[in-house]
Amino acid sequence: MVLAIAESERVRGTTSPNPPVGCVILDRSGKAVGFGGTQPPGGPHAEIMALKEAGTKAQGGTAVVTLEPCSHYGRTPPCTEALIEAGIKHVIHAISDPNPEAAGGVAVLNEAGVTVESGLMRHEVSQGPLRAWLHYARTGRPHVTWKYAASLDGRIAARDGTSQWISSEASRKEVHDMRAKLDAIIVGTNTVKKDDPALTARDADGMPLPHQPLPVVVGMSDLPDGAKLQHTALHLRTHDPDEVLSALAERGVVDVVLEGGPTVAGAFWRARRIDRVLAYIAPALLGDGPAAVLDVGVSTITDAVRLTVEDVTMSGPDLRISAVPQN
Amino acid sequence: MVLAIAESERVRGTTSPNPPVGCVILDRSGKAVGFGGTQPPGGPHAEIMALKEAGTKAQGGTAVVTLEPCSHYGRTPPCTEALIEAGIKHVIHAISDPNPEAAGGVAVLNEAGVTVESGLMRHEVSQGPLRAWLHYARTGRPHVTWKYAASLDGRIAARDGTSQWISSEASRKEVHDMRAKLDAIIVGTNTVKKDDPALTARDADGMPLPHQPLPVVVGMSDLPDGAKLQHTALHLRTHDPDEVLSALAERGVVDVVLEGGPTVAGAFWRARRIDRVLAYIAPALLGDGPAAVLDVGVSTITDAVRLTVEDVTMSGPDLRISAVPQN
Repeated sequence: MVLAIAESERVRGTTSPNPPVGCVILDRSGKAVGFGGTQPPGGPHAEIMALKEAGTKAQGGTAVVTLEPCSHYGRTPPCTEALIEAGIKHVIHAISDPNPEAAGGVAVLNEAGVTVESGLMRHEVSQGPLRAWLHYARTGRPHVTWKYAASLDGRIAARDGTSQWISSEASRKEVHDMRAKLDAIIVGTNTVKKDDPALTARDADGMPLPHQPLPVVVGMSDLPDGAKLQHTALHLRTHDPDEVLSALAERGVVDVVLEGGPTVAGAFWRARRIDRVLAYIAPALLGDGPAAVLDVGVSTITDAVRLTVEDVTMSGPDLRISAVPQN
Repeated sequence: MVLAIAESERVRGTTSPNPPVGCVILDRSGKAVGFGGTQPPGGPHAEIMALKEAGTKAQGGTAVVTLEPCSHYGRTPPCTEALIEAGIKHVIHAISDPNPEAAGGVAVLNEAGVTVESGLMRHEVSQGPLRAWLHYARTGRPHVTWKYAASLDGRIAARDGTSQWISSEASRKEVHDMRAKLDAIIVGTNTVKKDDPALTARDADGMPLPHQPLPVVVGMSDLPDGAKLQHTALHLRTHDPDEVLSALAERGVVDVVLEGGPTVAGAFWRARRIDRVLAYIAPALLGDGPAAVLDVGVSTITDAVRLTVEDVTMSGPDLRISAVPQN
């Protein structure tokens, strides 16, 4: 399953609105003979890719897959059929398909004499490569990560507005690697005016990485002439997070990072449309300058937006904190 | 040495301006037969306490001590003499005495035929129980820890000023346990007016712990009538951190925590008189409300006060971050 997760991570960002699934085929003796990840929409699913590589060695073998194999005709024929035809005798998957159209794979497989085991490394998969897609399948909305970089005292820029660089090179590299696995990045028109970002995923030498997320700008004002995003970004003229998320869901966007400034972040918080916080906290003090978020709809301490810390790691000298809202 | 460090932790907060030293005496066979920590000023040092417990079993044995034994007549006779008289053959210490008056212990011991090994667990001792005292011995100033509790977005209170409680019960308990090992706590007059704190170290039931730090209030205004600190605190009518620290050093204060609000914290930062930051970061967002510190003397990002993170742990649901300024 560890290898199947690695396959799924490899294709993450390129499969939406389909889930980035990974599959490994083991032969009769338990040796891994085929690897596959979901191809872009319309292309083969992970199981098909892995079966293709395994060829006749799949006969009598096992398919290890991060998501329950689909049993319906969508843009591609059902994977259950392909697994049965290839002579697979056992299927092990991490997560059952929450999509009623696709579910039922287990029944079909059992009927054909294939044993099915589900739940292996469920947590790793549901919090890892399939996290955004599972949220999307459950709610119909893209999964929103609010990402920001601030000083220990919560400032995203100094008094004079300068902010390059609060966070370390290591943290900025992490952010670019993350962008390369995303469907979209949202900023506000203020950020475009102030920072003129390109919102591209680049490597250490500044060269674009293979997969690029869709840049999205929200807000009423026009983008300044000559702004890097003027001709590349989807500009949504609204302040309503739900309108933004519906427009993105219609475009097949599943996994979104909000990199907007304090105003856009505040709007998403008030609408309770943030599913995860990713904070890069630089061990530095500024003592003045703008905060990471404004007006989350809290006026007294008992109403504070409470989060649960999922994970804290160091990113170079910075702290990288991942947290989720408590309901 | 681990046991000697534990002895030293046991007396921390009660020995200033002397160092909180710990000592363990091992008999000829290496068995621990005597334990001791420095007694309050004028009382016996750690070595004497441990030798007393060991009695004649010290003959031919080893003294393990966190600081080089003193060789001078101060308020008490030199420890080197007592070790030699008790028949100790080996001394192992973590840290050499930085005080020229007290140093020279190694030479005296060697002359009497005692072997001396120094440097064992040097880092654990210099960053642990002797940290504040070593700073005081080197600079003549008390060691200042700036402690604060804030939300992830850097707020110490909500828009309406309410702040009870941002941090968790676990974090508040830790703070009380820390207070019981301190010499003094500093707040500003604003904090007294706003929060009316007692600055006592209490246990989970609200009962006072055995050792209480000196409460210190800095600022020009009188304390409000009836304030809990009105008759217990040392009130220093100044805004100059160096005047505060000199006044405290004169009183034998070595280890101080600054719990003041944003203005006092800003003054100490501008004067570069903070030696350590201890931040309790609650995983919560407020979106508005006062920041932990104001005006640290930074107006542009390249002048940011840069810190190095020493340690990050969880304190209940909160993050506890210990960091030190980079010169």
